[in-house]
Amino acid sequence: MTLEGGEGAGKSTVLAALRTLLEEAGERVVCTREPGGTPLAERIRALLLDPSHEAPAPATELLLMFAARAQHVQATIAPALAQGTWVLSDRFTDASHAYQGAARNGDRGLIGLLEERVVGISPGLTLLLDVPVEVGLARARERGGVDRIEAEDTAFFERVRAGYRERAAAEPGRFRVIDASRPADEVAAAAARHLDDYRRSLA
Amino acid sequence: MTLEGGEGAGKSTVLAALRTLLEEAGERVVCTREPGGTPLAERIRALLLDPSHEAPAPATELLLMFAARAQHVQATIAPALAQGTWVLSDRFTDASHAYQGAARNGDRGLIGLLEERVVGISPGLTLLLDVPVEVGLARARERGGVDRIEAEDTAFFERVRAGYRERAAAEPGRFRVIDASRPADEVAAAAARHLDDYRRSLA
Repeated sequence: MTLEGGEGAGKSTVLAALRTLLEEAGERVVCTREPGGTPLAERIRALLLDPSHEAPAPATELLLMFAARAQHVQATIAPALAQGTWVLSDRFTDASHAYQGAARNGDRGLIGLLEERVVGISPGLTLLLDVPVEVGLARARERGGVDRIEAEDTAFFERVRAGYRERAAAEPGRFRVIDASRPADEVAAAAARHLDDYRRSLA
Repeated sequence: MTLEGGEGAGKSTVLAALRTLLEEAGERVVCTREPGGTPLAERIRALLLDPSHEAPAPATELLLMFAARAQHVQATIAPALAQGTWVLSDRFTDASHAYQGAARNGDRGLIGLLEERVVGISPGLTLLLDVPVEVGLARARERGGVDRIEAEDTAFFERVRAGYRERAAAEPGRFRVIDASRPADEVAAAAARHLDDYRRSLA
């Protein structure tokens, strides 16, 4: 399963709560993130977020994201799923649709092709932590330390949010949208209820 | 224009000779290489050749190559061509067909799609420095310092060579194949003649 959302949506807190829930239920769990999730993919992440060299062209950013994702699937996600381990990923392919597709107005046909030919897998459940852009950015800035993507303007993050909501509307069977402007414990509780429902649907 | 060939084919020597030829004819010249050719693309190159982290999955290697290439085209090649500057690149998209396609048996349909949708340009002239694999590898090993790709086995480089020759046969108008088992000065002279012919064809 995956957690998606813009900056400051509170994904890390929710991820930790869901991990605890699953572990207490006796499940094996791998928590991971994108871009990243393997040593090589984390190095690709560092390239993507580093503001010290020239900014990547939109196509470069898109291909670096999918390069990291291909590695993540092959080295981390697929082996875990094959062993019956739960994988909780902080972002996955939906993030490329929202950031590289909707927000950067990238080549959506290419994103779809890469999803199909390179990624090849889709989460069973995706929780979208939806929060107004100003609320999320205020939280993210409180944390301090802004990377290259976090430094984008408000209009960019409005397009990210709209891109995510469009994805959720198109795949209501997989997505659950959570109002993440509420206090963190309420958001985590809502996420836990969705995960419980999903687990019951698998049983 | 581009230079292609396996390990130890002598591309660097030829590139230097062709640069001198063009500069003496009063042309502006940018010499560049792949993967690389911009600060970010050189960092992607370092990731690709570094044996210290886990090996990239074939799809990861392919996407990293095209990520670097997208950056190279946008930041270095296209601006130079727009100013009427000659671009001499040590490898370009043909190398992905030979290495990631033929040698790694990668997704050739995807390589073709990325060439069309992301790269979008093709060299006017490509010189393929063709050399028997054992000859090339012996030269490369004399140079010392073997990177991740140079450490592949002989069968891998036989597939690279066959992949290049297949590309050359399919596009005889763009490719000139040079027997690069000969002494370096003869190879450079042959390359210079092909470049002269090409320049005359443009006049």
